[in-house]
Amino acid sequence: MYCGVRAAVLGSRDLWFPTLNTVRAMSSSGGPTPPFTTLSITHPANHITHVELHRPEKRNSMNKAYWSEMVDCFNQIAEDSECRVVVFSGAGKVFTAGLDLMDIAGDLLQPKGDDAARIAWYLRAIVSKYQKTFSVIEKCPKPVVVAVHGACVGAGVDLITACDIRLCTQDAWFQVKELDIGLAADVGTLQRLPKVIGSRSLVNELALTARKMYSDEAKSSGLVSRVFPDKDSMIAGALEIAGEIACRSPVAVQGTKINLLYSRDHSVSEGLDYMATWNMSMLQTQDLMKSAQAALEKKSPKDVTFSKL
Amino acid sequence: MYCGVRAAVLGSRDLWFPTLNTVRAMSSSGGPTPPFTTLSITHPANHITHVELHRPEKRNSMNKAYWSEMVDCFNQIAEDSECRVVVFSGAGKVFTAGLDLMDIAGDLLQPKGDDAARIAWYLRAIVSKYQKTFSVIEKCPKPVVVAVHGACVGAGVDLITACDIRLCTQDAWFQVKELDIGLAADVGTLQRLPKVIGSRSLVNELALTARKMYSDEAKSSGLVSRVFPDKDSMIAGALEIAGEIACRSPVAVQGTKINLLYSRDHSVSEGLDYMATWNMSMLQTQDLMKSAQAALEKKSPKDVTFSKL
Amino acid sequence: MYCGVRAAVLGSRDLWFPTLNTVRAMSSSGGPTPPFTTLSITHPANHITHVELHRPEKRNSMNKAYWSEMVDCFNQIAEDSECRVVVFSGAGKVFTAGLDLMDIAGDLLQPKGDDAARIAWYLRAIVSKYQKTFSVIEKCPKPVVVAVHGACVGAGVDLITACDIRLCTQDAWFQVKELDIGLAADVGTLQRLPKVIGSRSLVNELALTARKMYSDEAKSSGLVSRVFPDKDSMIAGALEIAGEIACRSPVAVQGTKINLLYSRDHSVSEGLDYMATWNMSMLQTQDLMKSAQAALEKKSPKDVTFSKL
Amino acid sequence: MYCGVRAAVLGSRDLWFPTLNTVRAMSSSGGPTPPFTTLSITHPANHITHVELHRPEKRNSMNKAYWSEMVDCFNQIAEDSECRVVVFSGAGKVFTAGLDLMDIAGDLLQPKGDDAARIAWYLRAIVSKYQKTFSVIEKCPKPVVVAVHGACVGAGVDLITACDIRLCTQDAWFQVKELDIGLAADVGTLQRLPKVIGSRSLVNELALTARKMYSDEAKSSGLVSRVFPDKDSMIAGALEIAGEIACRSPVAVQGTKINLLYSRDHSVSEGLDYMATWNMSMLQTQDLMKSAQAALEKKSPKDVTFSKL
Amino acid sequence: MYCGVRAAVLGSRDLWFPTLNTVRAMSSSGGPTPPFTTLSITHPANHITHVELHRPEKRNSMNKAYWSEMVDCFNQIAEDSECRVVVFSGAGKVFTAGLDLMDIAGDLLQPKGDDAARIAWYLRAIVSKYQKTFSVIEKCPKPVVVAVHGACVGAGVDLITACDIRLCTQDAWFQVKELDIGLAADVGTLQRLPKVIGSRSLVNELALTARKMYSDEAKSSGLVSRVFPDKDSMIAGALEIAGEIACRSPVAVQGTKINLLYSRDHSVSEGLDYMATWNMSMLQTQDLMKSAQAALEKKSPKDVTFSKL
Amino acid sequence: MYCGVRAAVLGSRDLWFPTLNTVRAMSSSGGPTPPFTTLSITHPANHITHVELHRPEKRNSMNKAYWSEMVDCFNQIAEDSECRVVVFSGAGKVFTAGLDLMDIAGDLLQPKGDDAARIAWYLRAIVSKYQKTFSVIEKCPKPVVVAVHGACVGAGVDLITACDIRLCTQDAWFQVKELDIGLAADVGTLQRLPKVIGSRSLVNELALTARKMYSDEAKSSGLVSRVFPDKDSMIAGALEIAGEIACRSPVAVQGTKINLLYSRDHSVSEGLDYMATWNMSMLQTQDLMKSAQAALEKKSPKDVTFSKL
Repeated sequence: MYCGVRAAVLGSRDLWFPTLNTVRAMSSSGGPTPPFTTLSITHPANHITHVELHRPEKRNSMNKAYWSEMVDCFNQIAEDSECRVVVFSGAGKVFTAGLDLMDIAGDLLQPKGDDAARIAWYLRAIVSKYQKTFSVIEKCPKPVVVAVHGACVGAGVDLITACDIRLCTQDAWFQVKELDIGLAADVGTLQRLPKVIGSRSLVNELALTARKMYSDEAKSSGLVSRVFPDKDSMIAGALEIAGEIACRSPVAVQGTKINLLYSRDHSVSEGLDYMATWNMSMLQTQDLMKSAQAALEKKSPKDVTFSKL
Repeated sequence: MYCGVRAAVLGSRDLWFPTLNTVRAMSSSGGPTPPFTTLSITHPANHITHVELHRPEKRNSMNKAYWSEMVDCFNQIAEDSECRVVVFSGAGKVFTAGLDLMDIAGDLLQPKGDDAARIAWYLRAIVSKYQKTFSVIEKCPKPVVVAVHGACVGAGVDLITACDIRLCTQDAWFQVKELDIGLAADVGTLQRLPKVIGSRSLVNELALTARKMYSDEAKSSGLVSRVFPDKDSMIAGALEIAGEIACRSPVAVQGTKINLLYSRDHSVSEGLDYMATWNMSMLQTQDLMKSAQAALEKKSPKDVTFSKL
Repeated sequence: MYCGVRAAVLGSRDLWFPTLNTVRAMSSSGGPTPPFTTLSITHPANHITHVELHRPEKRNSMNKAYWSEMVDCFNQIAEDSECRVVVFSGAGKVFTAGLDLMDIAGDLLQPKGDDAARIAWYLRAIVSKYQKTFSVIEKCPKPVVVAVHGACVGAGVDLITACDIRLCTQDAWFQVKELDIGLAADVGTLQRLPKVIGSRSLVNELALTARKMYSDEAKSSGLVSRVFPDKDSMIAGALEIAGEIACRSPVAVQGTKINLLYSRDHSVSEGLDYMATWNMSMLQTQDLMKSAQAALEKKSPKDVTFSKL
Repeated sequence: MYCGVRAAVLGSRDLWFPTLNTVRAMSSSGGPTPPFTTLSITHPANHITHVELHRPEKRNSMNKAYWSEMVDCFNQIAEDSECRVVVFSGAGKVFTAGLDLMDIAGDLLQPKGDDAARIAWYLRAIVSKYQKTFSVIEKCPKPVVVAVHGACVGAGVDLITACDIRLCTQDAWFQVKELDIGLAADVGTLQRLPKVIGSRSLVNELALTARKMYSDEAKSSGLVSRVFPDKDSMIAGALEIAGEIACRSPVAVQGTKINLLYSRDHSVSEGLDYMATWNMSMLQTQDLMKSAQAALEKKSPKDVTFSKL
Repeated sequence: MYCGVRAAVLGSRDLWFPTLNTVRAMSSSGGPTPPFTTLSITHPANHITHVELHRPEKRNSMNKAYWSEMVDCFNQIAEDSECRVVVFSGAGKVFTAGLDLMDIAGDLLQPKGDDAARIAWYLRAIVSKYQKTFSVIEKCPKPVVVAVHGACVGAGVDLITACDIRLCTQDAWFQVKELDIGLAADVGTLQRLPKVIGSRSLVNELALTARKMYSDEAKSSGLVSRVFPDKDSMIAGALEIAGEIACRSPVAVQGTKINLLYSRDHSVSEGLDYMATWNMSMLQTQDLMKSAQAALEKKSPKDVTFSKL
Repeated sequence: MYCGVRAAVLGSRDLWFPTLNTVRAMSSSGGPTPPFTTLSITHPANHITHVELHRPEKRNSMNKAYWSEMVDCFNQIAEDSECRVVVFSGAGKVFTAGLDLMDIAGDLLQPKGDDAARIAWYLRAIVSKYQKTFSVIEKCPKPVVVAVHGACVGAGVDLITACDIRLCTQDAWFQVKELDIGLAADVGTLQRLPKVIGSRSLVNELALTARKMYSDEAKSSGLVSRVFPDKDSMIAGALEIAGEIACRSPVAVQGTKINLLYSRDHSVSEGLDYMATWNMSMLQTQDLMKSAQAALEKKSPKDVTFSKL
């Protein structure tokens, strides 16, 4: 019943977005959630969406289907007013082995075009498309908590640097692998990793030598903010963090994500100006009064009910 | 006598600044320095000004008076050629509990205006005013060393991220609390915190979950550069750092602060160009010769006397 | 014989660069490589150039000759298609004591010019020239691994922040010393250090108090990515890292350096756009196919031979 | 027959774009080209696409259908390798009366949302969607020549400022009308008009008083580059300009548009860097040799055949 | 009576601004409006404030008093919710002869300070103060129409480039005079003039040769948008333009000014983002409904009454 | 004798610049000034250098020698303290026919490299080198007045957009010709032309159709600021303008050029900040007092003698 209401609501405002409501569909725990073939979508708790990279037999490597499914998935999440936070993880033994080289070999290794300029034009479209696959995570105003276990290789690093909060297991390792296939990491790692961790020397070393980084260095360098003993405890931890986010005012939470990202790419004074302009409307929310009242009454944010956003 | 000379000097150049010379007045140790009601000002050593947030009975929460007193105080400090460095701390049991919600509730919760646009206009002016309260710390060319003990909550985090050097006690904790009253932190935390500490994942976690961060994590993440066992040792440490700054050429020190801030918000090549332009005049200071000579003679900077700036 | 081939090749494309091929000359291990007087150049392994700051009797302090030799040296390295990575270290007991104050005293302390404006003009040219000395490291597309032992003072910090990967020995210490000679660090430290390490509070403390930082803090703050017990093991470690870089596709390696630097100074979305444009041509390299094939065949990058770049 | 070939080609590369090939379909001259209801598409000459705003009975005012049809239309044009240049004009008596206020009144005047913040969120999505409708013209790498007759009001001005070359008839007039419905022009005029014409005073006057500007002032201020006596001669002139563009190397033409737009929003030195990176691949086109040869043989560009792009 | 109401309203919201309500005081037509000594303030029509530079006996040259009175005046105008537009002109025979060299000679020609660096510090404060005098015009969200007759010299050009709409008489002339007193124009002309008129060659010629530009060239270059035969007709024209602005929604008008200025200094895509964020609240104004209704009923904006802003 | 003094002076400060003092040598009027082969250098009046593009038998087309001679020439001019302003023109019947396609064909049409990526690398170096040839005009702080007669084609347009003041004869025409050889104009036109003239539509039309623009449109669009009947009167006019510049304070003139260029590429507020920092030293020039005194005494700037810069 609840789903029916949701569908109706979504339907009525779904003016220019894909109508496929896959994200909210019931998912069988055993595999990808149709029509997706690489992603499994579940709703472990109120307002929380769990997206799982689901090609365990291929070590969750990223094939052609994956690149467009991610975009569809996060566009739907952005539109889904029930969802306030996303947990992202990988099914099976590792988080992801990165690019499925065999699957996309044609695109990259035998590009189309009559001369080098026309091939270049074609390659630019390919790279831009792949870049958008991860940028869609940033454009989605709901925070994304990513939980990494085992290997996180190549495009996997591009992926997690576009997420908001990074967690990993004790056995996780990370590798900026692109050099080993003869290219500069072009879908986000070189752009975001230096803004994600503080040590420039470490960033350069990782990107220029393709060496592995293990969980302890990932923690001390700030790539992840927490390390868990195993996958189960990590997922539990991710859901707990997600729960803390989900129970708070969505107006405040999503405004926080948007302004944190804005600040990354602007001077402090530009950031302050944008923030003040943003809050011209956002401070007019009822959530402010509700939250302030709860705070004065020493209640938890979890005791407050906020309207959908 | 010394104060008389100072007043005369200040008087003669005080063309367009408030004439109230509160900052240099003798302050009774027992409370705020009049005309201030929330700040106590003392001069613990040569060239060092100590500003104390002083509403201990309200856990140093920030009321309406505070917002304008900060601006007056730091504008005076900027003008005070005797002062070369500031130590900022909180009186009583905690550094600050943040916004005094009861005091400013009217402004935020019952804003004025005939329609949503006019209310928005009003809110923008409020937020801009609050933002300026902390930006005034950055605009003051004298370095500010902030020393935190106990709680540093909400607007307290906005405040300390605008300071130059951060210290804390073992028992200190920090909390980006704004989400809990239903708003995105809009007076500096979202803009400055990501440029103050290296781990983006941690910044996001703090801002999106409102969890507390304790002193050890504050140190390992780089929010503070030193942790002290208790408040007394911290104040002593802060004064020692301040002493190292105060004894050096004010031309060099203030140029360093200004250019460090400029670099934060510009590319390296823009920063180098600005620096070269800045030093067109600054390298013509006598301090250079005095300092170089002292260095060649193996003297300490403390043995050199620099003109006022 | 091998050198002869190289010289011929270089000669034929050496259209507008200095013809002096000093960088590839055999160097006697005992001192600077002529015509340089402050730098020693060797080639410890295939594709690796080792540049040593070589004025050990003056603690490798930087004199007038040094400033222009660095530019010549790195311009040649940039042109040398045999070289794919650089290791930079200091001869003798310390890495560098910084500026040779006696040698350049005339320039800075007795600048030329009829009035303050004309002196300023002269000083700007001096500072710009010194800035270029270190910027040339960034402009060289080959990665530079710097290995620091003993002292790294003043201009030494400016130098290492312009390098890509920083290593040090257990006994190394770093000091932003400029304040002590009465000036704001104007050849790179204030611009690059904040983008090199994550803790803003620490950067400010170092720059504003001129205190020493030892190797453990250099590691925990991220200034260096590795610490070695002594100079010998560090040089070995540096060469190992350099070896990892040298064996990979130079198209990919140099594209990675260029885009990492671009990203530092631009927003993520600008960085992605530039990267996509860059890879329009770079993805058309044969190295991609060679590397991909090696990867599929589980070979090491070291087993692949790449054309010169 | 020719269309069949085209469809096949498009089909094979149409990986992630809408498959609807409306843009290349035969259009009946009497009305909109299905499935479009507001746009008519024809191909008056080789490589030239003519898009006509086609709601003459409503003075070509922009209704809901229009906003999404523009996006579909220009996305298809961007993909259509037969098309090298676009002519855009309006059917009937005027170019466009701007927004169809009655049709979209609901969206703007009765926006959805539980409180002012949620309404704001909804409005932002609406405005962003409308902004994209015109930005799609800029994102399309093929130059767009717009030809204005009669009235060009409100959103019409937003539209034409996103085009590359502007022409008009003697009887044309332009009006930044948004003020008259109580809002600041938010879909491009305020952002692009100041970068389109040279006189800031005139831009401000037009935007702040909503007065009409006639064709002579449009010409002298540089808003249009040519004025024609009537619509027929203007369309002929537009097609002639389009013909000059269509006969030249599409690699050079589209690279020119992309870099002109990049330059508008960046410093000269950023623009030069981007251009050099762009031409790393584009100078490897066969078009260069073909064109150079033709130039040496004193042939016209029209005598050269370039591959599709 | 009406004034009494205004004063009450202003009093109640006048939290952190100077309480001096000079701007709204009745002014005798014969001279400056006390407490101002260089400016005369009148209210020729509803919502219109007329500011006159009033030192006719000194050819309206700018003395020390002027620099601070401008700031007070425009800060009050920014706060005055009755005022929706400003007309700025000069009393007597010319608009302004620029800087009153005799009055400020001491500041510039005999600056204070113990060495060149300290003098530099002092000069920077002076220049910044003068810059703010004109920037205050831009920061005031109400549009400013400036009307120039006779001479507009030196700082006069700095002044008018900060205004929104520029008009002049047939006998007006303009001169970037700073070179002739040995300095580069440092309070706005070099920064704003190139963004105000389209011909870079002309800007450079004016600034580098200090030649006079007469009204016809001012019009054809776009510096002014209209030329009037004499001062009386110009003032009438200025008031007419001001009337067109004053009768429209102040929410829309002031949002237009703010976004036009934002666009000048940002890329188109940044400008669009800011605009969408701005309109999140502004589109919720009642003015939109009122204006739309009037438009549908073919009424003039002058027939609509808007709330104060 | 005077030259001897100059040479001595230059010699003593010529630390890191080419020692070739060609720029100040006597030039025979009949041809290029050795060692230049494409440029003739004369000194028609005090402080004025006249550079003539001198390959009249090849219509002043730009060959390989030209590209490096321009850099040497303007680097020398930048260093030559006697020179305060440059006039640039073309010998023979036309200003320039642009690129000497035959001479540089090898570089562009048969670029070196083992694969497309390595060719790209080579091409980038070529394009960057050509870009620097014109950027050197902007980097030279002395204003450059360019005088165009007859044809100004292709690279000629790149050249003149880098100059400060543009003049032309009645018979001059301009053509952005690059499209016709199959490439996007990559050495400055696409970057600078839109910032040089106000009409975006015209810029696009010129760049996208390669049509000729004649002198009247060059004047009305603002590309040139003056048109002269013939070459003789234009050169006389150019020298007169140059004379107006040469007689003024070189501190003020060169600061004006530098800040005008800075403003082009920055926001107004960045520009004001840079200007204030620049003038910290520049306002300490004696020229200010000299000029102010002359102004008060109603003397012409020509009666004042300024020190060299």
